Amino acid sequence: MKKAKAVPAKSQGVIIIVSAPSGAGKTTLIKRLMQAFPDMRLSVSYTTRPPRVGEVPGKDYHFVDVERFRRMRARGEFAEWAKVHGRFYGTPRRPLERSVRGGCDVLLDIDVQGSRKIKGGYPDAVSVFLLPPSLRELERRLSERKTDGKEVIRQRLDNAKRELGEIARYDYYVLNLKIGDALDALKAIVVAERHRVSRVQRWKPLSP
Amino acid sequence: MKKAKAVPAKSQGVIIIVSAPSGAGKTTLIKRLMQAFPDMRLSVSYTTRPPRVGEVPGKDYHFVDVERFRRMRARGEFAEWAKVHGRFYGTPRRPLERSVRGGCDVLLDIDVQGSRKIKGGYPDAVSVFLLPPSLRELERRLSERKTDGKEVIRQRLDNAKRELGEIARYDYYVLNLKIGDALDALKAIVVAERHRVSRVQRWKPLSP
Repeated sequence: MKKAKAVPAKSQGVIIIVSAPSGAGKTTLIKRLMQAFPDMRLSVSYTTRPPRVGEVPGKDYHFVDVERFRRMRARGEFAEWAKVHGRFYGTPRRPLERSVRGGCDVLLDIDVQGSRKIKGGYPDAVSVFLLPPSLRELERRLSERKTDGKEVIRQRLDNAKRELGEIARYDYYVLNLKIGDALDALKAIVVAERHRVSRVQRWKPLSP
Repeated sequence: MKKAKAVPAKSQGVIIIVSAPSGAGKTTLIKRLMQAFPDMRLSVSYTTRPPRVGEVPGKDYHFVDVERFRRMRARGEFAEWAKVHGRFYGTPRRPLERSVRGGCDVLLDIDVQGSRKIKGGYPDAVSVFLLPPSLRELERRLSERKTDGKEVIRQRLDNAKRELGEIARYDYYVLNLKIGDALDALKAIVVAERHRVSRVQRWKPLSP
């Protein structure tokens, strides 16, 4: 009788994409998720936009100039990149692939077009769309930030509405009515995806 | 601008298949899962085997004679059926489809061949393979039951080893080292699958 190989001995990490219209509560939710799963890595994007007040280089973003971004892009160092509101954003490829191969989950905080590109290059990636409770709440949260002018807020609201139409491209949705419930749903998605048979790279026989 | 349809208004229930070699702890785990999710339905199979001590007709199984089983099968009333250890087993189609359409999750406690047939007919069904902690533990649990003779136990152990080789056909695996951990994993799989975009049949616009 052939040996039953039934215990996962080595598994790939999960790439988890979380997208949301700005103001949906994504930043808080991701922060809470990272606290709940300390072994999960958060991908740090490169961007050509200037740092906002309080942002830490290397933690929130790698801030680079357009020249450097273009050079990295030419060398294929981005798993995905995009130009949003006139600025470049890119997900570095190497830390992403190293983590996944090592069995570490990686969270990507990227937008709809970024998600599409990642899913193209990494079909096992899992995408989650976070839904705001309402448009009014979305507007309120955007206005509260005070970092953006009226015109930027309107632009972001329009973007939000357009992005919501893209939800069919995502694997999962999470409705952010209460942050605790949204967090539980997101955690369940991560835990479930860690139990996917397709991520197991090596099985070992069940011990006698 | 098109109306963003962003709140799930109607979703299909999830069909969850749980398979395991006998002795893996499936019955206990399923019982605990049903307690955790009172709105989930457990599919009750038809069988031609006689009831064991303590089994309740209509709850554990619908016990029928071979004649009746064959008639039901001829009328296409089974979503899947199989002959195992010389007895017929079948999953009734109507309650399954009614629950799923109504947005209710249904759990199917079926074996490897049943799982394959259900996935063929219902591609959105989710299959979970429960792994026993070890072969020795498996044997110990089978022996403890006292309902089965030595020959039956040996046959079930052989079946178990064969079934473990089929795990690649499953979506998820759950290793049953501790019942609490296995339950958490199974619950996460159910919760995650409830958040699948593909199960949403109707979206309504985000309120203003």
